[in-house]
Amino acid sequence: MRSPASNETTPLRVVPRPTRVTTGETVLRLSGDFSIDIDNSSSLKSSIPRDLEQAIHHTTATLHKNRHRYLSPQRGAEFLISGTQHTEIQKLILSLNGNGKPRSIAHDAVLPVEDRVAAERYELELATDGSAHIEADTSLGLYRGLTTFQQLFFYSGGKDGFQYTPHAPINIEDQPAFGWRAVLLDTSRNWFGEEALLKMLDTMALIKMNVFHWHITDSNSWPLGLDDFPELAGKGAYSPEEVYQQKQIQKIVLYANARGIDVVPEIDMPGHTAIIAESHPELIAGYQRTPFVKYAHQPPAGQLRFADDKVTEWTKGLLQSAVTVFSSPYFGTGGDELNTTCMMEDEETATTLKSKGWTLEKALDNFTEQTHAVVRANKKTPLVWQEMVLTHGDLPSVKKDTLVSIWIDSKDAAKVLAKGFRIVHAAADYFYLDQGQGGWLGEEGGGDSWQGPYKSWQKMYSFDPYKDVEEGKRKLVMGGQCSLWAEQTDETNLETVLWPRAAAVAELFWTGAGAEGYPRSSVEAFPRMHDVRFRMVDRGVRAIPLQPYWSALRPGTTNK
Amino acid sequence: MRSPASNETTPLRVVPRPTRVTTGETVLRLSGDFSIDIDNSSSLKSSIPRDLEQAIHHTTATLHKNRHRYLSPQRGAEFLISGTQHTEIQKLILSLNGNGKPRSIAHDAVLPVEDRVAAERYELELATDGSAHIEADTSLGLYRGLTTFQQLFFYSGGKDGFQYTPHAPINIEDQPAFGWRAVLLDTSRNWFGEEALLKMLDTMALIKMNVFHWHITDSNSWPLGLDDFPELAGKGAYSPEEVYQQKQIQKIVLYANARGIDVVPEIDMPGHTAIIAESHPELIAGYQRTPFVKYAHQPPAGQLRFADDKVTEWTKGLLQSAVTVFSSPYFGTGGDELNTTCMMEDEETATTLKSKGWTLEKALDNFTEQTHAVVRANKKTPLVWQEMVLTHGDLPSVKKDTLVSIWIDSKDAAKVLAKGFRIVHAAADYFYLDQGQGGWLGEEGGGDSWQGPYKSWQKMYSFDPYKDVEEGKRKLVMGGQCSLWAEQTDETNLETVLWPRAAAVAELFWTGAGAEGYPRSSVEAFPRMHDVRFRMVDRGVRAIPLQPYWSALRPGTTNK
Repeated sequence: MRSPASNETTPLRVVPRPTRVTTGETVLRLSGDFSIDIDNSSSLKSSIPRDLEQAIHHTTATLHKNRHRYLSPQRGAEFLISGTQHTEIQKLILSLNGNGKPRSIAHDAVLPVEDRVAAERYELELATDGSAHIEADTSLGLYRGLTTFQQLFFYSGGKDGFQYTPHAPINIEDQPAFGWRAVLLDTSRNWFGEEALLKMLDTMALIKMNVFHWHITDSNSWPLGLDDFPELAGKGAYSPEEVYQQKQIQKIVLYANARGIDVVPEIDMPGHTAIIAESHPELIAGYQRTPFVKYAHQPPAGQLRFADDKVTEWTKGLLQSAVTVFSSPYFGTGGDELNTTCMMEDEETATTLKSKGWTLEKALDNFTEQTHAVVRANKKTPLVWQEMVLTHGDLPSVKKDTLVSIWIDSKDAAKVLAKGFRIVHAAADYFYLDQGQGGWLGEEGGGDSWQGPYKSWQKMYSFDPYKDVEEGKRKLVMGGQCSLWAEQTDETNLETVLWPRAAAVAELFWTGAGAEGYPRSSVEAFPRMHDVRFRMVDRGVRAIPLQPYWSALRPGTTNK
Repeated sequence: MRSPASNETTPLRVVPRPTRVTTGETVLRLSGDFSIDIDNSSSLKSSIPRDLEQAIHHTTATLHKNRHRYLSPQRGAEFLISGTQHTEIQKLILSLNGNGKPRSIAHDAVLPVEDRVAAERYELELATDGSAHIEADTSLGLYRGLTTFQQLFFYSGGKDGFQYTPHAPINIEDQPAFGWRAVLLDTSRNWFGEEALLKMLDTMALIKMNVFHWHITDSNSWPLGLDDFPELAGKGAYSPEEVYQQKQIQKIVLYANARGIDVVPEIDMPGHTAIIAESHPELIAGYQRTPFVKYAHQPPAGQLRFADDKVTEWTKGLLQSAVTVFSSPYFGTGGDELNTTCMMEDEETATTLKSKGWTLEKALDNFTEQTHAVVRANKKTPLVWQEMVLTHGDLPSVKKDTLVSIWIDSKDAAKVLAKGFRIVHAAADYFYLDQGQGGWLGEEGGGDSWQGPYKSWQKMYSFDPYKDVEEGKRKLVMGGQCSLWAEQTDETNLETVLWPRAAAVAELFWTGAGAEGYPRSSVEAFPRMHDVRFRMVDRGVRAIPLQPYWSALRPGTTNK
């Protein structure tokens, strides 16, 4: 057996690292007419879901197109002794367990988060005689197996280049530890076009991420083009071209679902809504009020007048219109960074509160109750930020099935869990991709970003999802995500900010503790991170280098 | 007069801000058949240098292609009242002062650094009747004026889009405060292809940077393809494709010179040379010795056996071969981070020192004396890092005309100036572009980069080149540069790491203290930085956004 480089626990360079792996050292090559087939006895044979069929075509094409070479000083030549006849892999056979009409990948991509772990399970076998097989209970599981299969192969280079794997026989049993492995992208502060989003979804799929938390609107621009509310984007988008039209969103969602990715939209409210004032000034308190630092976390100030019944009614209509555009079982209503000064100094709000005899919290509770009712009436579960549970007292409107994202500090997870809510880890001290680009508010001399330095992939990878979480509460941890708030990011640097860092988050929440426990070792993961980075580059993604190329070729030489 | 937004000192959004500017508020548009001509009385009329002629063509084409719009909520529509007939600019006339055969841009790009300031001087006039004129003493000065002229214009948008300037009449008298305004790029740790370098030079020219400090070799790879030493790149480059062949280098140098940029090469020695061992193992002490942390600042360890006469002779040959490839009056020989343990534990070096009765410092002095003699014999001045003056005692070999770059700490500038050397500011605490990407040496949990957080453009801009510099020493400050060490940078993120940050450095060292004194105000500069960033993006450069687009359109709203 070839030993893995440095302290790798597997010589496979598959990201995320599969749960259970055995490998050998036989080199197999992919036949020039390699193809992917369905097992004759499988229910897929008679009725294959369209998205799985497309995934099969895509996998075959991707394998033949691959030009990524093994990262070692000899670029893999050590496996390819001249004159050796390597056994060829002619076919990869897919089998779906069970009977009944197979469900599509897209169908299972939007299962409730707890059901995703089982649905993503697959087994992969690659024998030394070249026979190859993936088995799963779902199309989604087969899709995950196809993704792993791609990462087993390296390009030989040379004039008759071919694809080979140096690690046969390979046996993999794999499933994620967590059902929520997400990227959040904020598309309000700066604009990202459809092409950039689709490419991001492709790269997420490569590393088996399964949730795109789409923070679609905020105070800076309103790119959400809803058929029933055209004026919102009409006056609130950066330009007529910088709008996601409703049909286009549905296309993006379908594209994501077919790759096993749930698109969870978020319309953050009642804060983070200032731009609504461009089309509906009467709905917003304190629009562009200055000094902004008193009335908002960042300019422009302005929040929904959520104490006002008319505003609540309008918001319910908006939500009813938005919710149906998305296939996700979840809908994000935000709830972070509510600025109370902005509300209390708003004359109309003050008058309303007085006439109703309400506190601001009571008004928020009423607003939440009514808006969440729209989400629930559409058979969806609300997703909120931690303040909705920790900051405004115990609001009865926030029902216990609500998903709560932790963002301010990872220590806050325990507090939310103590109240019995399910959580998603997204804390700024580990998972904020936007940090470390320098302060962006104008000031003499600048400074570091507000939440401290750049979060390296190693830092993200060192996170323990169960830190301070008692045994009985662990089942409430749904998973985690890295978040890209877009103050200093647009299409020019989306990929360099996101990749390959997010792959560390993908692996952390797919693999879980593994046999080694938490924290996972970033030193052990380094060779895989290099490999997946260069695989991304081979696919045209601007994933940044993690070390000098000299070091990338020599795992284990460049540690502290 | 329209007042400039926020606290801008000029409404012009030209980067670097010109030294003396007056503006008005007449809108002029560029004629559809706008052209650039030579003044009839100018010596250029009979003999125009080829590179100036090309710059004229390029400027005309760039002006017509421009799609960059004015950054304001109305995107410049406030200047373009419908139905108004804007006077057209038909021609821009260039005049070269003096008689005699005009020199090329390239000629003056490689003047001694003290002579550059006068050579880059120009005057620009744009009258309300549409007449436009640039006057200078050199082709290089005219070139700088052409660059400014481009930045005066914005695209109108609309179906019959045109270029206009809202600020006529405009009078500019401009020249740089410092003759060294550089970007350093390390092309050894990771590879950058020719196309990426040429594009970088174009962007440098846009902001009037005038030195490309090319740290071409280091310990990780040897991409320098010299006709006389083919084995160095043959065995030391990352691949046969990742080599700058000698002819290709000359093409790159010419391309730079024609844009007013001096390419100052650097072969860092005697440290930072480990990779030479791949082709000449006998020249290198301690190649790949571990633990690297004992023998080098980063892997792989290995340094020239500089005490050895044969090594010195070989190095002289190498320098003679390399020096002639470049047109610069300067040649960098490095001299930073010499690891003494690596040398003292090298048996051959120890034996040599003993037999000669030399200390390591004496050996270094001899090596420097002899290698610098080659540089000087070719009529070039050596450029070294600060350790050559501060760390090894006063080496007589380091002559007082040597240029010394400050890198470890900006406070070290005063120490080097005290010894009477000319300096270039390149200190890590202000000007290291690579910082803030997280630690890159493998370690559990990762960490921040070695020299602290990301250096924001505001931080760079806040630098005072004369801090702690007594009046009499100021003439020894040649200028400054930002440095991009490439541990975590290659072509995927070159532009996002470099742009637009380096524009702040360009402006700082072009403008000098200005009327406002040091430190320059980054708040005042913000609107220009936004503008030049979007201008870069319009030219296909992945310069990163500095704020939400909402803020970029509204200068002054988003300050602390």
